[in-house]
Amino acid sequence: MKRLKVSNNVIRRLPRYLRKLDELSAQGVTRVSSSELGKQLGLTPSQIRQDFSCFGEFGQQGYGYHVPSLRRQVAAILGMDRNYQAVLIGVGNIGHALIDNFCFSDWGFHLTAAFDVKPEIIGATFNKVPVLSMEELPKYLDEHQVDIAVLTVPKDAAVPVTQILTAHGVEAIWNFTNVELTEPNSSTIVENVHFSDSLLSLSYYVSERQDERAARAAREARRENSSISNS
Amino acid sequence: MKRLKVSNNVIRRLPRYLRKLDELSAQGVTRVSSSELGKQLGLTPSQIRQDFSCFGEFGQQGYGYHVPSLRRQVAAILGMDRNYQAVLIGVGNIGHALIDNFCFSDWGFHLTAAFDVKPEIIGATFNKVPVLSMEELPKYLDEHQVDIAVLTVPKDAAVPVTQILTAHGVEAIWNFTNVELTEPNSSTIVENVHFSDSLLSLSYYVSERQDERAARAAREARRENSSISNS
Repeated sequence: MKRLKVSNNVIRRLPRYLRKLDELSAQGVTRVSSSELGKQLGLTPSQIRQDFSCFGEFGQQGYGYHVPSLRRQVAAILGMDRNYQAVLIGVGNIGHALIDNFCFSDWGFHLTAAFDVKPEIIGATFNKVPVLSMEELPKYLDEHQVDIAVLTVPKDAAVPVTQILTAHGVEAIWNFTNVELTEPNSSTIVENVHFSDSLLSLSYYVSERQDERAARAAREARRENSSISNS
Repeated sequence: MKRLKVSNNVIRRLPRYLRKLDELSAQGVTRVSSSELGKQLGLTPSQIRQDFSCFGEFGQQGYGYHVPSLRRQVAAILGMDRNYQAVLIGVGNIGHALIDNFCFSDWGFHLTAAFDVKPEIIGATFNKVPVLSMEELPKYLDEHQVDIAVLTVPKDAAVPVTQILTAHGVEAIWNFTNVELTEPNSSTIVENVHFSDSLLSLSYYVSERQDERAARAAREARRENSSISNS
């Protein structure tokens, strides 16, 4: 695929487009205009056209977008058709939750193995994923294609495990540890999951509503006061 | 606080500003220019100035931003000083992981109780948070201030539990269930956590690198071919 250098903001919107297109498909919608898509996503139609124009011409003047084709193209841009292989390191609560409930294959990933240090789960299989010992990790990485590692270890283990991963050729890490894994100019691609970003956005919206309510109450109190003083 | 209607994109950037300011504080940096902040966040200085101008005047021409003050102001905008009370519904793997490892109080939230249906954990306390029976939820909501509910129940329970929450006055839900909780024009504020968005961005970056590498290999092969045919 030919790639221009695309801005991070565009890249971050692609998964949202994908979700919206899946939603439309589920509703039986096969055709959508950029203005309708924009309305549903809180974006302007021109922003949407611009975003897609980074990757080629997807829509047709006067027709809009064909939902299944656009979905296929967005999925391809995201690399969902490349059969990426993943391993997960650290089968604690969050690791376990991902193995059990996160459908890696829906997003084009194959989770081939998990690694942990706890003897009581080594050798077990959760949701068809075998749990291997951490000691086997270097050898496993040398012998298998591993495109990304999901890092769900305790904080203290985050950096040492990252060093093993990068020393054995893993180039991309999906990081749930809240620890800064690599030096600024490292060639490893790290995607940090920050739960707090999402909670703080929610906090903002709750605060906004509180403030609006307080402002309304203040206006009403003023009105009442002035009607008392007028009477 | 006076609020203008602020775009979602700005709101989504605020938690990133906060994290960056915390990082700078930890490094002992007390003063930062909008261009330095921009460089570190991949934004233009003018975008940064514009973002903050939605909320007032925070920087000073020629001085830049005072890191601790800006941090305080961003935190206030996000509502982190409002002592929000939260409950968590569903103590499975992901719920448990949040109770144990996610530091709600760092973000201004107080997690007061968790709820579950499993008899073996009802009455237990994890990380100082008591687990109560789901049957107690309606009464609890009626008798306590609950600003947000963290929803970590299995898929099937997502909508019924949401109905209980909204019927008992909960206005904001932090949704980990991957289920669309409310009708489009509902007054409930829902923040969906989509792990897949983050994984797909990572997938994009991995694909981009693969493509660059393939393009480089193709160029080298051509060069080699042409030097063979020239020799």
